[in-house]
Amino acid sequence: MIVVLKAGVEPEKQERLVDWLKESGVDVHVSVGEYQTVLGLVGDTAKIDMDLIESLDIVDSVKRVSETFKQANRKFHPEDTVVTIGDVKIGGGNFALIAGPCSVESEEQIVSIARDVKAAGANMLRGGAFKPRTSPYDFQGLKAEGLELLKIARRETGLPIVSEIMNVGDIGLFEDVDLLQVGARNMQNFDLLRELGHTDKPILLKRGLANTLKELLMSAEYIMASGNDRIILCERGIRTFGDYFRNTLDLSAVPMLHELSHLPVIVDPSHATGIARMVAPMALAATAAGSDGLIIEVHNDPAHALCDGAQSIRPEEYADLVGKIKAVREALV
Amino acid sequence: MIVVLKAGVEPEKQERLVDWLKESGVDVHVSVGEYQTVLGLVGDTAKIDMDLIESLDIVDSVKRVSETFKQANRKFHPEDTVVTIGDVKIGGGNFALIAGPCSVESEEQIVSIARDVKAAGANMLRGGAFKPRTSPYDFQGLKAEGLELLKIARRETGLPIVSEIMNVGDIGLFEDVDLLQVGARNMQNFDLLRELGHTDKPILLKRGLANTLKELLMSAEYIMASGNDRIILCERGIRTFGDYFRNTLDLSAVPMLHELSHLPVIVDPSHATGIARMVAPMALAATAAGSDGLIIEVHNDPAHALCDGAQSIRPEEYADLVGKIKAVREALV
Amino acid sequence: MIVVLKAGVEPEKQERLVDWLKESGVDVHVSVGEYQTVLGLVGDTAKIDMDLIESLDIVDSVKRVSETFKQANRKFHPEDTVVTIGDVKIGGGNFALIAGPCSVESEEQIVSIARDVKAAGANMLRGGAFKPRTSPYDFQGLKAEGLELLKIARRETGLPIVSEIMNVGDIGLFEDVDLLQVGARNMQNFDLLRELGHTDKPILLKRGLANTLKELLMSAEYIMASGNDRIILCERGIRTFGDYFRNTLDLSAVPMLHELSHLPVIVDPSHATGIARMVAPMALAATAAGSDGLIIEVHNDPAHALCDGAQSIRPEEYADLVGKIKAVREALV
Amino acid sequence: MIVVLKAGVEPEKQERLVDWLKESGVDVHVSVGEYQTVLGLVGDTAKIDMDLIESLDIVDSVKRVSETFKQANRKFHPEDTVVTIGDVKIGGGNFALIAGPCSVESEEQIVSIARDVKAAGANMLRGGAFKPRTSPYDFQGLKAEGLELLKIARRETGLPIVSEIMNVGDIGLFEDVDLLQVGARNMQNFDLLRELGHTDKPILLKRGLANTLKELLMSAEYIMASGNDRIILCERGIRTFGDYFRNTLDLSAVPMLHELSHLPVIVDPSHATGIARMVAPMALAATAAGSDGLIIEVHNDPAHALCDGAQSIRPEEYADLVGKIKAVREALV
Repeated sequence: MIVVLKAGVEPEKQERLVDWLKESGVDVHVSVGEYQTVLGLVGDTAKIDMDLIESLDIVDSVKRVSETFKQANRKFHPEDTVVTIGDVKIGGGNFALIAGPCSVESEEQIVSIARDVKAAGANMLRGGAFKPRTSPYDFQGLKAEGLELLKIARRETGLPIVSEIMNVGDIGLFEDVDLLQVGARNMQNFDLLRELGHTDKPILLKRGLANTLKELLMSAEYIMASGNDRIILCERGIRTFGDYFRNTLDLSAVPMLHELSHLPVIVDPSHATGIARMVAPMALAATAAGSDGLIIEVHNDPAHALCDGAQSIRPEEYADLVGKIKAVREALV
Repeated sequence: MIVVLKAGVEPEKQERLVDWLKESGVDVHVSVGEYQTVLGLVGDTAKIDMDLIESLDIVDSVKRVSETFKQANRKFHPEDTVVTIGDVKIGGGNFALIAGPCSVESEEQIVSIARDVKAAGANMLRGGAFKPRTSPYDFQGLKAEGLELLKIARRETGLPIVSEIMNVGDIGLFEDVDLLQVGARNMQNFDLLRELGHTDKPILLKRGLANTLKELLMSAEYIMASGNDRIILCERGIRTFGDYFRNTLDLSAVPMLHELSHLPVIVDPSHATGIARMVAPMALAATAAGSDGLIIEVHNDPAHALCDGAQSIRPEEYADLVGKIKAVREALV
Repeated sequence: MIVVLKAGVEPEKQERLVDWLKESGVDVHVSVGEYQTVLGLVGDTAKIDMDLIESLDIVDSVKRVSETFKQANRKFHPEDTVVTIGDVKIGGGNFALIAGPCSVESEEQIVSIARDVKAAGANMLRGGAFKPRTSPYDFQGLKAEGLELLKIARRETGLPIVSEIMNVGDIGLFEDVDLLQVGARNMQNFDLLRELGHTDKPILLKRGLANTLKELLMSAEYIMASGNDRIILCERGIRTFGDYFRNTLDLSAVPMLHELSHLPVIVDPSHATGIARMVAPMALAATAAGSDGLIIEVHNDPAHALCDGAQSIRPEEYADLVGKIKAVREALV
Repeated sequence: MIVVLKAGVEPEKQERLVDWLKESGVDVHVSVGEYQTVLGLVGDTAKIDMDLIESLDIVDSVKRVSETFKQANRKFHPEDTVVTIGDVKIGGGNFALIAGPCSVESEEQIVSIARDVKAAGANMLRGGAFKPRTSPYDFQGLKAEGLELLKIARRETGLPIVSEIMNVGDIGLFEDVDLLQVGARNMQNFDLLRELGHTDKPILLKRGLANTLKELLMSAEYIMASGNDRIILCERGIRTFGDYFRNTLDLSAVPMLHELSHLPVIVDPSHATGIARMVAPMALAATAAGSDGLIIEVHNDPAHALCDGAQSIRPEEYADLVGKIKAVREALV
């Protein structure tokens, strides 16, 4: 950690800071420059509260040299992590094609969509059972029953299943779910992350709407610090001033997360855009940016056939998109 | 709900939409204009998925006429809600002066600060026992022990105590805490909100870093929908592109939340700015904007005496600030 | 334009609003619903100040039905616009590969880079002569001399030249420049836009850092309203809370601008990311998202050879990237 | 300037960087630490391109020790600057009460409002003559004629006049205007700033919607670098994800700008909120935050009397607000 002091600091104030830092258990190297003095902190600086130091009167700025995410850091784990879920591999050149409806509604619905997306090329099935809804009056999902229906669809198709978990108390219900999704709103639900780290379940960790890449990696670190390193990161749009779209898909997150971390990174163009006809171009863009997979909402409910423009695309559109995704991946080999 | 159709919509598509809306249980009034057709939906439109309608090919835009927050809405509850905690009242002209350290560290520390802030004019004591930390390697608080120390400080001073709850499983531990804080990162932890609604505890609900005022009110609605209407809203800064500050304090939230809702609104200038010397001007600004109270970090730990510029202010600074807050309030009577 | 009144509006207030609207020259259709009244405005609503109406006490919301951009609107011009610059076509399936240094520094530099990027596949040469710099103490470009050096490079290679114009007073100097760039900071310099509309020069209009897509199209409309419809739109990153990158490249702008407008849309991954090693993945993502071209910074100055990681890529990297861009475009035909 | 190198940098790469820096004219002190090497740059580092250095492969981070704004910096000019305009002083404890209509519409209108705001306590008159409008089809202001009408209102009331200038070519027209406003959209119109620096006119410089405080100060620096130091800074709201308001008023800018710079800082609550009934609470908050003045839209046009909720407030509301502003200022003496 580097601490740059302000110009003209009184020697006794500087000395008190250096003493206090040493008491905190780190070595301090003082470099006196013509215009400023720089303190180099060596040792276990993870314990030092950077915000506190930075807010001191006599301090101009503080810079951490070593990143605070360790286990998620590519520096200490140069090879790509490959997460294996049944027969499916994600990361290290393996591509996840996760598809399915926003919510599980009935056995007929989920089995039918599962068959359709499998035929279209998907290798994993998504479906919401516990739904985080902004309004307490909105449908909150079929919950435990929804998970059972997903398992029926898995039995019928062989596709591993993905569903969102919102609460530590529900972990038991997810024992037989293949991939547990932590949604954007829970990215910093640290108790949930910690408990998921004590399971042996693969985790799909979505980026929060206003969270930086570093914060996303720190949340992965929570899970890893509890002993679970089977994590897939997911970019799904951030909140900006933008009009027209629900969120702004930040595709530059893909190559940067790959540089910072060894964990696989996938993209959710459905939630990011909120508009079905924008899913295909953004899915292709994510593929070209180096994504390790895509999670896409697909529906086939005839009752909603009028919803041409909704966030979910139809199975035949998904099949067409999968063909293009594969073509882009081949073009970039 | 108003649905504006695009110009030149095919009549059969329009008809299918109207039929589908009627099947969903609402009445539909069609107004054919020269340039566009507008559907007026009447009845229980809360069940209608506005996003889905808006994403239809033939729809230009959708506008909810009635707001989705009901119990938090001033329209249906014109008088200010006053939340009573022991002898302290908040809202309806009553002002909360909540102060205390970021974290409870020891009995000596919390009792000493409690005495200091009481002498300075505070009417409630804050102190973190469960700490949400971005890094799993950072201090996570004294937890249950911290709550016990807060109770000792309450016994010594008579000040009601405020502390943050992060997990449904901890609700039992907070039975004897006077005001339960839901932090910014948990503003949309819907399971936690729902369970807190089943308690009879007053809740201090902080706005998330990237959440709109409507989302904040919907989160209050979650608590109220479970039966608990003793809620205090708290603005604590939003995430923007800004430099220099940790967050951007959005003081316009104060008068707007007062217009939209009957719930009391307080402000946290310490977390919003992250800089002790900015706490006083922003606390005074919040007061002038009509805030119903302030929650401010105060420390008196001599070991940190060098931290003049940190987020926490000293008791003597707090006493001075309380005097100015009162002067501003009197000037605006 | 649709004006939704609040519930329970006094009839006389409603009547005064309707009268005032009619005096402003539009017809008003009143639809009285059970819960709200809706006014449908017909006629030349472009003159009506939507913000003013929306801010009225008795008004709940206002929605424009017809968009305010007319000439840039695809509704009124369904075919793609193709902008022709010398032998180069942009839009309607034609792809622009614009490359060159950030600043023109010397004849040797610009001619050498021009040859390199041409060999690598570029069909247009960029180079800054007038530089918008945040600090008045930074290098402001070679100005008129820089434009002359660009013309020499054009003579040597045949590549049309692109350079940024910052001021109405400089239009004369750009008479022999092939494509005039309006930078992000000048996207709402309305006097400049209006005057550029009076020239017959193709304009490369970059999106401002905090401007919506609608505002970008309204700025294009300024140029078109003055008579010049040879406009290329450019997404170059928006300002968000993001760390690691200078800006956040908003690739969803590409398919949405194509839907809203007939004008060609290109992408600048160099300025958006600010990091050379991120240029290739984001350039490929932009291509897959349907961009009509890319503007990329390329340098070959041996004095800067150490700057492997700078925003500019080297000619050999550019050549490699052009190969991949073409492969992605072929994969998506 | 401090350059922190990445761990494990090859010595020859480090040497090339050091050589290159020395050639650029600065001294380089190398501190080799256990975990990283830090370069301290001494001398005229203003010429060093920080972004370029930061983007190098071998560099972890770069930190400027000395700020790039010099003349606007309080470090080099500790006393408050007081800008004098006729009899009015702004800054250093003197408060500006600038009021008037959004646009100058007629002699009758501007003279009448001028009299009203003067009676209410205003000490300066604002009125738009050149209007920056998002749409080319909207009213663009009365231009030169509007300035003449403002001068008539000045003659009638003695109030100095403030109006926005958008273009270098119009500077001559503003010769007899007392305070020239640079609007948010032109905050980085560097040619305009430079030319205004060559005049002897006081400048009201508004912060851009997505500009940092540092960028605002660098724009002030442009004007000062040309020789004009009569600058008033103005916070008028930034662009965020927020709903309900046109912009988010960033009042923390007030105390931070006062800390960073000696220039006066005023606030525009009318444009920031866009809602008349929010102007008073935010004006009072700005006053309590330490603002040196307020610029507020006031109208008295009977034709708009129905616009109770519009951005402009009525003269009687303004008079009431001025009383409260004064009470808050007295309370904080």
